[in-house]
Amino acid sequence: MRVSGTPYRSIWPEASGAAVSIIDQTLLPHTFAVRTLHTLADAAEAIRAMHVRGAPLIGVTAAYGIALALQDSATDVALERAGIDLAATRPTAVNLRWALERMRTKLAPVPATARAATAWIEAAVIAEEDVAANRALGAHGLTLLRELHERTGRAVQIMTHCNAGWLATVDYGTALAPIYLAHDAGIPVHVWVSETRPRNQGLLTAWELREHGVPHTLIVDSACGLLLQRGQVDVVLVGADRVTRLGDVCNKVGTYMKALAAREHAISFYAAVPSPTIDWTITDASAIPIEDRAGVEVRRIAGIGADRGRVDVELVPENAAVANPAFDITPAALITGLVTERGVCAPSEATLSAMFPELAKAKVPA
Amino acid sequence: MRVSGTPYRSIWPEASGAAVSIIDQTLLPHTFAVRTLHTLADAAEAIRAMHVRGAPLIGVTAAYGIALALQDSATDVALERAGIDLAATRPTAVNLRWALERMRTKLAPVPATARAATAWIEAAVIAEEDVAANRALGAHGLTLLRELHERTGRAVQIMTHCNAGWLATVDYGTALAPIYLAHDAGIPVHVWVSETRPRNQGLLTAWELREHGVPHTLIVDSACGLLLQRGQVDVVLVGADRVTRLGDVCNKVGTYMKALAAREHAISFYAAVPSPTIDWTITDASAIPIEDRAGVEVRRIAGIGADRGRVDVELVPENAAVANPAFDITPAALITGLVTERGVCAPSEATLSAMFPELAKAKVPA
Repeated sequence: MRVSGTPYRSIWPEASGAAVSIIDQTLLPHTFAVRTLHTLADAAEAIRAMHVRGAPLIGVTAAYGIALALQDSATDVALERAGIDLAATRPTAVNLRWALERMRTKLAPVPATARAATAWIEAAVIAEEDVAANRALGAHGLTLLRELHERTGRAVQIMTHCNAGWLATVDYGTALAPIYLAHDAGIPVHVWVSETRPRNQGLLTAWELREHGVPHTLIVDSACGLLLQRGQVDVVLVGADRVTRLGDVCNKVGTYMKALAAREHAISFYAAVPSPTIDWTITDASAIPIEDRAGVEVRRIAGIGADRGRVDVELVPENAAVANPAFDITPAALITGLVTERGVCAPSEATLSAMFPELAKAKVPA
Repeated sequence: MRVSGTPYRSIWPEASGAAVSIIDQTLLPHTFAVRTLHTLADAAEAIRAMHVRGAPLIGVTAAYGIALALQDSATDVALERAGIDLAATRPTAVNLRWALERMRTKLAPVPATARAATAWIEAAVIAEEDVAANRALGAHGLTLLRELHERTGRAVQIMTHCNAGWLATVDYGTALAPIYLAHDAGIPVHVWVSETRPRNQGLLTAWELREHGVPHTLIVDSACGLLLQRGQVDVVLVGADRVTRLGDVCNKVGTYMKALAAREHAISFYAAVPSPTIDWTITDASAIPIEDRAGVEVRRIAGIGADRGRVDVELVPENAAVANPAFDITPAALITGLVTERGVCAPSEATLSAMFPELAKAKVPA
């Protein structure tokens, strides 16, 4: 999508063919800066430190991380160790493990001499598939938004959470893809963007939407219940970090309370889910590891100071007791539908398996 | 309650008998600073700028504001104008209007020469009544916490929101009063404190609890659903800014989603409500004016910088579209009980009227 009018993706291989560049998302929305990753360690650190974030983008970055690793050494041991290092960076998003498994499956039978080249190509294929899936998913979601607009005759009021935009993927985004496509198709939309403490990824969403010219309003996370209560929302549309075989959705913490409030007011709640986000091996959502992140994310915050430079300030003392779980589970029963690249389906094992029979068959529940 | 071991109230008349002092709550938890109010304008500004906040404390500050005004002029016109000025400072908390009406009723029949002295006394009486009500309310809430402890045999896990502690009242607090009394009685408690964006009054709660030695953990507002989902909460206990005749509770935005999540997991949800917080004239909660506060509260935040000085930073650009509603409504149907100074009752017109017959009779629904 566009940044100040220039088309960008969130990750791209450098022309040298030996490095990959990303947008450092920890500096947004204040500063737009590109970082170039040259090694496996660079890629692992980019994921761990959340220079890149968002389940689909984490997966693609990990795939490129394998390619970077194999430039140094392409032995079986090097391949396996790279996978282990990258898998350890973040626990919750399943796309990371999905991408690593796909790279291993592709590369293991390839002779070591050809592995690096094959890895670069496979990472690029995964990236292109992500773009295509999001575009397809967006078109299916667009249909939902168009129907809402036709029913109400006014701008569709959409509530989202966190950032499931193009920054969270390679391009288009998941939850934001239908919104971008609807806006581009002339369907009036307005997006309620919850800031998404503690890391405020909602500010990335607001930044994306502003750059693309989509009307939106930033709110604190706690305001979502009131807006639903007042009838100011037509549909809730979020992304996902991992979806179980039964359609339960693990997404950024705070999603669950929005889903409860949406059900209370009979507002549709959709999760945008490209198929790599589905974990076909899990039926019990409580088996999904919920990442506990460092308390410093709650204790400190970065903003722009009086001299327009970036300043990091302390909100609560360092020794204050803090818990910082990053995700929660929205059970399928609260979800109107999953928007996938093959269409919209109800969240259940039967419907998901019918939509993706080859994937459902390939993996069995643990 | 104690600050670094020294007992404090949140507001107190100066020995001069011509001024009233408050703790500047906009500087907490970083800096503990006392401000002295000398005039009506000082009192109105203290409420408007939230140097004092919390429904009960707003009411008491307004009462002292009348006393300050009458020192300058005690005519009927001056009395009426002071009431109008103070009523305009904040729209949602009903205690403000309650206190002003009580002052007017008390002072109108008094000769102008005696009004200032009477006003000082009446404001002090209101303050003492607040302390007594909170202590009584706390004792009733303590019984609930004791029962929970006896049932589970471990520390009672309490979730609260915003600050309904002694800083929000004259002393003890509303939602925190039972917690302080339980802690002092040796009942083990642990409090989940949600930070309460955008003004982070949860940090005031964490500060209060730390000063008093009560175990607690700070979380972002969005984490509440997950904690309830995981069974890490035994009871939700919040304050209130206005309660309708039917027992619907208007409180800090975010309360409603916690109540929905509590019901979903069959966790008790109580609001601590001293009787001046009940608006007997309102039956339809949607008639309560929900304050829309300035977007700058979402756009900017203050913290402690590298040199330990207070720094104000920008989170999103000044021209970013922001909505900042400050309260929401938790319908009676989601509330297990209201903890009042006369006991705990179910939230309904019948039970509230039975608990406070003289108040229910004195005011009729509009």
